Parts: sequence; C-alpha cells; structure tokens
Amino acid sequence: MISFTDEMAGCAADVERALDALLNSERLAGPGVPPERLVAAMRHGTIAGGKRLRPLLVRQAAGIFGVRPERSLVAGLAVEAVHCYSLIHDDLPAMDDDDLRRGQPTAHKAFDEATAILAGDGLLTLAFALLADEDCHPDAAVRVRLVAELAAGAGAGGMVGGQMRDIEAEAGPVGLRAITELQAMKTGALIRAAVRMGALLGGASGEALAHLTQYAEAAGRAFQLADDLLDVTASPQAMGKATGKDAANGKQTLVGLLGVEAARRQLGEITHNALSALLPFGDEAGGLRATAMYFANRER
Amino acid sequence: MISFTDEMAGCAADVERALDALLNSERLAGPGVPPERLVAAMRHGTIAGGKRLRPLLVRQAAGIFGVRPERSLVAGLAVEAVHCYSLIHDDLPAMDDDDLRRGQPTAHKAFDEATAILAGDGLLTLAFALLADEDCHPDAAVRVRLVAELAAGAGAGGMVGGQMRDIEAEAGPVGLRAITELQAMKTGALIRAAVRMGALLGGASGEALAHLTQYAEAAGRAFQLADDLLDVTASPQAMGKATGKDAANGKQTLVGLLGVEAARRQLGEITHNALSALLPFGDEAGGLRATAMYFANRER
Repeated sequence: MISFTDEMAGCAADVERALDALLNSERLAGPGVPPERLVAAMRHGTIAGGKRLRPLLVRQAAGIFGVRPERSLVAGLAVEAVHCYSLIHDDLPAMDDDDLRRGQPTAHKAFDEATAILAGDGLLTLAFALLADEDCHPDAAVRVRLVAELAAGAGAGGMVGGQMRDIEAEAGPVGLRAITELQAMKTGALIRAAVRMGALLGGASGEALAHLTQYAEAAGRAFQLADDLLDVTASPQAMGKATGKDAANGKQTLVGLLGVEAARRQLGEITHNALSALLPFGDEAGGLRATAMYFANRER
Repeated sequence: MISFTDEMAGCAADVERALDALLNSERLAGPGVPPERLVAAMRHGTIAGGKRLRPLLVRQAAGIFGVRPERSLVAGLAVEAVHCYSLIHDDLPAMDDDDLRRGQPTAHKAFDEATAILAGDGLLTLAFALLADEDCHPDAAVRVRLVAELAAGAGAGGMVGGQMRDIEAEAGPVGLRAITELQAMKTGALIRAAVRMGALLGGASGEALAHLTQYAEAAGRAFQLADDLLDVTASPQAMGKATGKDAANGKQTLVGLLGVEAARRQLGEITHNALSALLPFGDEAGGLRATAMYFANRER
C-alpha cells in the first residue's frame, strides 16, 4: 500500500508534467497562436510546485470506482487550472494585493497587471476546453456534467461569489455564520467540485455522489479552518507566503472568532464528519480518508 | 420577410429579456448564494443595451438549418456573456482604462476594480454553465462541442490571446500582418465561434461548417475594419464612447496603415468574400448576408 505522502507527490508530479506539456503555444492554439508572453504568464501561475490537492481529490474520488489515475488526470488539470487562475486574480492589487505566492513573485509582479488578468482569464477558459475534450472522458454526457459541475463550483454561486463575499467582509464584522458561508463558497466550492467530478468520472450513483458531497463539504471546511489556524500559528518561512496577514488586515476568521483552542476542536469534529461520510466505501476510500487527515494535520 | 433592423431588434430584445431573467441570485446559485453586489455588477456589464450581434449570428447560422430562434437563444447568451466579460476586463485601468462604455460608466467605475474583475470571471464561468445545460441543446454531444468551440474562440489562442497581442502592439509598430492577426484573434475569434456554434446547433455537415467558418472570418474582419474606420470618422455622440482614441494613443490600426480610402476598399472586398461564402446556402442565408452588409455599412 502506497503512503499518502507518496500518493500526493506522485499526483503532483503527474500534474506538473501534464501542465508542462499542455501549456505551450502549439497545444493552446485556437483560431490563432497564443502570444508567448501570455503563455509564459499562464505557466508562471500554474507550474510552480503547489500541492495539487484538487487533482488529488479528483483522482481519489474517481479511484473509488476503479478509475485509473491517468483517466482522471485531465479533469484534475481542469480543476487545477481554475484554482491557479483564482490565485492569480486574487493576488492582484485591486484584490488581496499579494507580492508573494509559493515563495515566488505573483503573476502581476513577475509580469504586469494586464498580463496577469489575461493569464487568469486564459486559464479559466482552458479549464473548460480540457473538460470538453475526448481525452477527459469518452462519453460526452459525462464531459458535459463535468463542465456543469466545475462551472457551478467556480462561478458566482461558488468560488467567485465567495471571493466577492470575502472582500465585502473586510468592511466590518460579519459573524460566524457569514464567515462559514463565505468560506464554503470561496474555498469549499472548488474542493466540492473536485470530489464530485471524480465521482462523476467513475459513474457514481446518486447515493454515492451524495455521500461524497458530504465528505467534500466537511473536508473543505477542515482545509479552510486549518489554513486559518496556520495563518495564526505558522511562520512565513514554513508557508512560503506571508502569515499573520488576516489579523494584520483586521480580517475576521473563524479562528479569530472562536479562539485557537475551540477552532482546533472544531477542526477535529469536522474531520470526523468527513471520515464518517466515507464509511459506505470501505477500503476503497483510503485515499480520501488520508487526504482529510492531511487537511486537519498539515503544517503548511 | 422581416427587415434586418427588425430582426436585430427582435434578437436584442430576446437576449435582454433572457439575461434579465437569468442574472439573479436564485438562478445563478451554486453551492452557495451569489452576493448581491456581484450579481449587480454582472447585470451592469450585460444588461445595458448593446446590439447583441453575436447572439444574432448564432441565431442566423442555426436558422440556416431550420433551428428556431428560441432553440439557439441559450448558446447565444453564452457567447454574449463571454463578450460582455471581455469588455469589463478590457475596460479595467490595467488594460484600456476606459471610463465609458455604451454611454454608461464602466463596471470598475460604477462599482470598483475588484468587483469588476470578479463580475467578468463570473460571466465567463456562467457562459460554460449555460452551454452545459440541457436548455441549450438536448444532445450532450452537441453541447460539449459548443463548449469546445467557445473555449477555443475565447481562450489564449483566440480572444484573450488577441487582447494580449493588442497590448503588446502598443509598445511599437508591428505591421499590417501582425495587426490583421491580432484582430482575427481579439474580435474575429468570438464572431467565428458564434457562427460555428449556430452551425453546430443545426447539425451542419463538415462542408457547411467550413463555408460558414469562411463567412465568419471575413465578417469578423469586416466588423473590425469598420470599427477602426468609425474610430477615425465618427463622433463620440454617435458611438456612445470615446472616438479618435486609437490615434490619440498612438495605436496602430489597419486604417492608420492603409489610409481611409484603401481601408474602405478593403472593407468592400472582405464583405464580398463573406457574401460569397454564403452562396451554397441560397435564400436560407439571408440573415447572415444582411448582417455582413450591416457590418460593412454601420454608422455606429
């Protein structure tokens, strides 16, 4: 049995290799040839390490249904492209105004704002091109469900809406419920989409999809709560990005409202919920189980 | 027989009504509820008049194959959502820095930059949600082809790549061929996608699709050339936006390189090419013919 660390590293290496092969002017060609600067910025925003947790979730959820890793890779790339575009846009001066990401200059620092905006737009569009391609899944009916799933998770009722709420929340105190809701959209929705897309690739029944959705929603909350805890407790060196930023910005987080101890307790409970949702799948869900544990216990 | 003016107005009214019904927190809901400010900005960027030429092209191309207007509306909305998102992002301070669009404040002026970026992201994502929906076409295989077509037209090898080239072109003289190429991407690619999507909705043969692609590429060039001519010859009042901008910005255009007279001649030739490509379709292509003529002769 492969260790979680090896599984994560193996998936990340596959994603890295596939992105490297994908992101060039020839492969991205449409009616015209993409300009080199744009391709370079798209590469900068995607090929830079990263844990590739979302493709891992796609792979693990699909794996429950016997889908081999190479058959879920394209869908994983699509989710990762959306994740990376969202980081590029979130880092912009008009948004979170971050100079550093994964220890590297952010896209608008390495290039410029206009290029960063366009690189993000290009990656978001690419995500849907990937899902529409036969390489993603042989059945068009499945591919189109993946498109719907990713669009719902990434759009105004998901990630983009969550980012908007996050910006609005900076204006003043919003309370526990509103923060939970905004995090479920900003971070949770794409994690949810990743897990569900894996399930759809595997032809999951409605019941299995419901269980995995429960898992994904709990895992997403755990991921965000752990992130907020790390922002309080970890060093910038360990994180490869600025920490203590939320507090410095007077930004409300669950950890700020609950306190570190209560937040850790809640993290334990949510993780328990995530694991419980996997019970019907027995050993097949070992990967998703390990990922939920990792979310809860990660140190960066 | 309905006049072109009436046909265009009818299509625009349908699009306006459909966007109005679509763009609200309930219809856009995903895992969460879209924040009102985001929905308002998405509405601002889409429901503001506009000629809705791209949905018209979808409708007219589909109409050649007997597809009724109401059956091509959703695909038309998707193309229009992409067009509107591109305007919102192009208007941003980091890009063209425009304060006025269709005589109204641009999105980042009416709201703020962050909201404008997110509204654009939300509209781009929405476009693919629309195409993936059964309301767009009953056959998933067709829907997934529409997704691929729109992604190719809108992405790094299409519209987004063209905008990048346009920004790069501001740095210095680039020559006729480079301008033609960048315009084929920036404006042409989405017009091409619109026509081809209409053809795909209608189940066009490969040969018919090839003819319509030829039409679309010529029509797209005519549209852009006419736009460049209007920038030189029309008043801001007639256009509802600033004119003479290209020259003021030292921006090269075909008109600048060719001169007004030669550009007008070339516009005539391109329009002829567009019309010739429609010959195989006879009377069924009356709508697309009228649109190409409109592109060549429009006064705003």
